[in-house]
Amino acid sequence: MAPTELAAPVSSVTYSELTDIEADFDDYNVELLTQQATRERALYERRSEIVRRIAGFWPLVFEQAPPEIDQCIQPTDGALLLSALEDFEVTRFEVADGGDPRSVALRFTFAENDIFEDRVIEKRFWYRREPVKEPKEGEKKKDGSSESWSGLVSEPVAIKWKKGKDLTDGLLDLAVQVYKEGPSSSSDDKSSKAKDELNAALSKTAVGGLSFFAWFGYVGRRISAEESKAAVAQERKERAERAEKRAKGEKVGDEDEEDEDDKEDEDEDDEDDEEYEFEIFPDGDTVALALSEDVWPNAIKYFRQAQEQETLSEADFEEGFDIIAEDDDEEDDEDVPPAKKQRT
Amino acid sequence: MAPTELAAPVSSVTYSELTDIEADFDDYNVELLTQQATRERALYERRSEIVRRIAGFWPLVFEQAPPEIDQCIQPTDGALLLSALEDFEVTRFEVADGGDPRSVALRFTFAENDIFEDRVIEKRFWYRREPVKEPKEGEKKKDGSSESWSGLVSEPVAIKWKKGKDLTDGLLDLAVQVYKEGPSSSSDDKSSKAKDELNAALSKTAVGGLSFFAWFGYVGRRISAEESKAAVAQERKERAERAEKRAKGEKVGDEDEEDEDDKEDEDEDDEDDEEYEFEIFPDGDTVALALSEDVWPNAIKYFRQAQEQETLSEADFEEGFDIIAEDDDEEDDEDVPPAKKQRT
Repeated sequence: MAPTELAAPVSSVTYSELTDIEADFDDYNVELLTQQATRERALYERRSEIVRRIAGFWPLVFEQAPPEIDQCIQPTDGALLLSALEDFEVTRFEVADGGDPRSVALRFTFAENDIFEDRVIEKRFWYRREPVKEPKEGEKKKDGSSESWSGLVSEPVAIKWKKGKDLTDGLLDLAVQVYKEGPSSSSDDKSSKAKDELNAALSKTAVGGLSFFAWFGYVGRRISAEESKAAVAQERKERAERAEKRAKGEKVGDEDEEDEDDKEDEDEDDEDDEEYEFEIFPDGDTVALALSEDVWPNAIKYFRQAQEQETLSEADFEEGFDIIAEDDDEEDDEDVPPAKKQRT
Repeated sequence: MAPTELAAPVSSVTYSELTDIEADFDDYNVELLTQQATRERALYERRSEIVRRIAGFWPLVFEQAPPEIDQCIQPTDGALLLSALEDFEVTRFEVADGGDPRSVALRFTFAENDIFEDRVIEKRFWYRREPVKEPKEGEKKKDGSSESWSGLVSEPVAIKWKKGKDLTDGLLDLAVQVYKEGPSSSSDDKSSKAKDELNAALSKTAVGGLSFFAWFGYVGRRISAEESKAAVAQERKERAERAEKRAKGEKVGDEDEEDEDDKEDEDEDDEDDEEYEFEIFPDGDTVALALSEDVWPNAIKYFRQAQEQETLSEADFEEGFDIIAEDDDEEDDEDVPPAKKQRT
């Protein structure tokens, strides 16, 4: 090992180039995704038509869901999805209007059930960029690494629970109410009946036992469409200016990187605290990504997996497979019933 | 839970439609990847120019490699990569000639080192489709689900080890030799000096302790370019025929699905045995995918992660981070040396 060989300093000039080329890749990626979303729509519609003819298609897919989702599905959630989930659809709803192809709408269609009145529950996620904060007095303006956060934000979606059936024990309703009250503009304003109740409820909630349906309460950072648009335009403008300077052979970015890194870390910590203050489902964006970028495109693959598991559990019931064999209805043996996966 | 609701039979008609729509998605995906590979080349070239100015860029990226790769890197491999890996490049080498964009070449450039003479080691993977086996006498020809295996295949790449330095203990050389002898055409032909030696060596090798450099010996299924091309054409033709039938309202695929599933499973088992017979690195294709679809596009992200870990280990050396602090060279503190991650 010769770590000293790697110890050459990375100049801030090079750092700003890394940041800019990543942004160029992102821009190209958005272009590609837009085209992909437009072209794939017809294929996905055809797929939806086919899978609607297969009873239990989506429940089987959700039983095989990747860990990010599986770990959020409690036994009661699983039972509800299994018995009542009729359809699932992901759309890139901003594409038609020239918007961001990374914004997604996730639409669940349910059969009549004991838990809630809704037949359709849809949650939308908008891909937004956070404005770069103006440097505080005495701080230098950052140059060359003015990356701001970007990602998925959402709004809480209310569910009309049947009496005594609220799977989130009131959390979702409170999240909807707190969201409607708007962000706390000052520290005096940080209290309200709903906020106090939500804080109290959150402090009592074990994250591991939370219902999947609390996910509909996810908010994320509060960034408006206008703020995001301005932040994107600002970043593009600065990037173009740096590219121009580089083309002319001028120097770009000449600050002390070490100091800047420390500053950024502190900023991020502050923001994180604020972001999660009234969040009932902190990983909501991760689940949205797993649903839209894994479950949705790979649904047929997951469906086949579910059926293979079923075949296995029928043919040779072995230990090691986390399956409870179907044994209550011998007549249905050829009819590919779902493998009941044990959720823990 | 109401499993009976899900027990409706899936007709083979619908199965063949699922198979066909997956193939249509694949076709579109290939089109998209071709375009992407062509358009992104300039961006990747610009990135390569930038990262070549950063000493230790690729070693730092490999230190942060995802689990599929990290678990294959032994301490000696890690030390070699850290001290000698100068450049890494992934190309979609078949795109220029109208070939498959999923075929990848992975090229490692090394500094002069104690272990081998090579400065450049390149491994190519071809995306190939296996011909559908003709049904044996007495078996019905499959209809509607004639999916055959497709994926990455490769050839072993020899490494010129310095005396006594072979990190694979002779396995890689034997794999190269066995590959040159060609596939066993009959069971009589299943023995040769190299094959016997390789089998003996493999039975003594603990998979967990294998060098990453054994990956260069991966072969996978032996499918020629011609066989693959014919299989692709055949599948497309049959799919088009089925689509035409469906458009006319004719029935497609009417076999007993259960029987067919069982048959397929048996076939696959046979093939798997053959496939891994002389394979010194059975997960070679998984590693190739992780390198080309994760490490390569996300290299800057991994590089930043490596630096953040370094900052952490400098600022507050805490338990729980799997890091050994840099303490042998105080002068280099500001020069962003790599975090030495302990490999197990």
